Amino acid sequence: MEKKNVNIVIDTIGGDNGAPVIVKGAVKGIEENSNVTVYLTGHEDELNKLLSEYTYDKNRIKVVNATEEITCHDGPVEAVKKKKDSSLVVGLNLVKDGTADAFISAGSSGAVLAGGQFIVGRAKGVKRTPLAPLIPTSKSPSLLIDCGANVDARPEVLVQFAKMGSIYMQNVVGIKKPTVAIVNIGTEEEKGNALVKETYPLLKACKDINFIGSIESREIPFGKADVILTEAFVGNVILKLYEGLSKMILTEMKGAMMSSFKSKIGALLIKKNLKKTMSAFSASNKGGAPLLGLKGLVVKIHGNSKEGEVISAIKQCNNFVLNDVSGKIISGLVKEEEKSEE
Amino acid sequence: MEKKNVNIVIDTIGGDNGAPVIVKGAVKGIEENSNVTVYLTGHEDELNKLLSEYTYDKNRIKVVNATEEITCHDGPVEAVKKKKDSSLVVGLNLVKDGTADAFISAGSSGAVLAGGQFIVGRAKGVKRTPLAPLIPTSKSPSLLIDCGANVDARPEVLVQFAKMGSIYMQNVVGIKKPTVAIVNIGTEEEKGNALVKETYPLLKACKDINFIGSIESREIPFGKADVILTEAFVGNVILKLYEGLSKMILTEMKGAMMSSFKSKIGALLIKKNLKKTMSAFSASNKGGAPLLGLKGLVVKIHGNSKEGEVISAIKQCNNFVLNDVSGKIISGLVKEEEKSEE
Repeated sequence: MEKKNVNIVIDTIGGDNGAPVIVKGAVKGIEENSNVTVYLTGHEDELNKLLSEYTYDKNRIKVVNATEEITCHDGPVEAVKKKKDSSLVVGLNLVKDGTADAFISAGSSGAVLAGGQFIVGRAKGVKRTPLAPLIPTSKSPSLLIDCGANVDARPEVLVQFAKMGSIYMQNVVGIKKPTVAIVNIGTEEEKGNALVKETYPLLKACKDINFIGSIESREIPFGKADVILTEAFVGNVILKLYEGLSKMILTEMKGAMMSSFKSKIGALLIKKNLKKTMSAFSASNKGGAPLLGLKGLVVKIHGNSKEGEVISAIKQCNNFVLNDVSGKIISGLVKEEEKSEE
Repeated sequence: MEKKNVNIVIDTIGGDNGAPVIVKGAVKGIEENSNVTVYLTGHEDELNKLLSEYTYDKNRIKVVNATEEITCHDGPVEAVKKKKDSSLVVGLNLVKDGTADAFISAGSSGAVLAGGQFIVGRAKGVKRTPLAPLIPTSKSPSLLIDCGANVDARPEVLVQFAKMGSIYMQNVVGIKKPTVAIVNIGTEEEKGNALVKETYPLLKACKDINFIGSIESREIPFGKADVILTEAFVGNVILKLYEGLSKMILTEMKGAMMSSFKSKIGALLIKKNLKKTMSAFSASNKGGAPLLGLKGLVVKIHGNSKEGEVISAIKQCNNFVLNDVSGKIISGLVKEEEKSEE
């Protein structure tokens, strides 16, 4: 059976490693995903020059010129409104006008979030659009939803997030009946802040998800649930603490290993095994963080992404589109709404 | 100059390691702190038997019989009200009636929090009593305030916490002008949820603290501030994620080191240096988490505490009382209230 053609835009400006890693990732990405066409937005001359170094199917990588840059120093909403010729806005417009199905960027998170909402727009029935990265655990990665801009969200919004997250884990990551847990400060049902207490019974009553109750943050690293549901402020705190604490511990351990001749020899002997374990923590093989609930797919990859992350994100977008996750999210939410109107 | 006599109660029931480690810690604790008298609450016979194995100044360790036990399966508030003869309630009553200045327990956190508030009671001018553990960083430990039961706290409560935390770090830990930062999802002043946005200008205007702005959670492990201010729900998430993620990473690394003969040899060579580094993460030399703002001091030590933690907590309580931190907290808060009434 021939696969549907999937069109993916990649923003080549704004990542820490510049256009070269994006171009390299795009070339490899279309090699590995034979049904994908990539649009690269950014400085035309630079991109054509970089592409000229590769052999690839010229019909499947297209350059779209964009001259402005959005940096993390720009106010996200303002930048998206004013910098019409930025690689981000030009790229998102290609999703809006239907040329492309998905958009990938390593640029400013704020601008990606704002642009996704203002340019691509929320899908019908979606209250808010959550940013949902996969985080490493000692088992398989969990989806942390929401880490976006929806601070102080209401319970009914969190319930939608739980559904979107479940649909994503099922259709993109391939987990059959993904478990959903809400981040809480205890595991008893009566525990929590006002938001959790209000949301808990709604989740329990929701038949579309496999809700397993509360999760304390100390259990998150051990992969106790596939979908970790929380309001964006807390999600952000979890995501960034994960990053910072891992980095700190690894740095300290490295320091300890390098502090004597004997331990340096020891470090050499364990290097290979340690590297294998640590690569499990790397995001490169998991794609980026999708912004869910939009009319198209928008994926934020880490600022310091290299070609590996770009390739994974292409595959992730391809799975998302081929499995019609957007359609499933919309029908899942609409179904629920109709039920509640009955 | 002779030091003031300080009386400290220690609950010997409820910790994972039972009364033996508490008794051992108490004996060492009075050796190291010549002005301290310890009251041990728990099963009289058992305690006397354990004590008979040591040589110590018999006037400075006193046993107070208490037969009931509060476990983490009891509802905290109910347990504190009903189990009048529990080691926890008997101990807290010794603080309430002025026999003791401070109380230490390795028992149920919930019961310690509830008992502190209901039995010892809030000091004048204190709106809420925060639980404030020290957390390890790559520099010196930071005070994470609040990790207690005050979820959904109001901005003026957080401002009090910031002051209490500063006074604690200055007088108990010995940091001259402790820096205070509020946990946020960005470092710009306009970022945050409703609570942070409301609290930020109040902290900025507060002259009693050294407020340095927002801190993103990824910076917490690098010791960017002495006092990490946050609402209890988020504080709880940070504290428990710290615990869980450290454990997971260390377990995975250990697994990697033990996975081949070569790496096992390597692990042996780095063991000593690694252990030194990792002990910096241990809580045993930092005392327990104080519940601040009460009429006496209540300190919660980790459930799996050993004698080291008990000794540190005794020292911590002694510093707290000798430096009159309670008095300083009350006068600090009252001063502010008078100002705002002007």
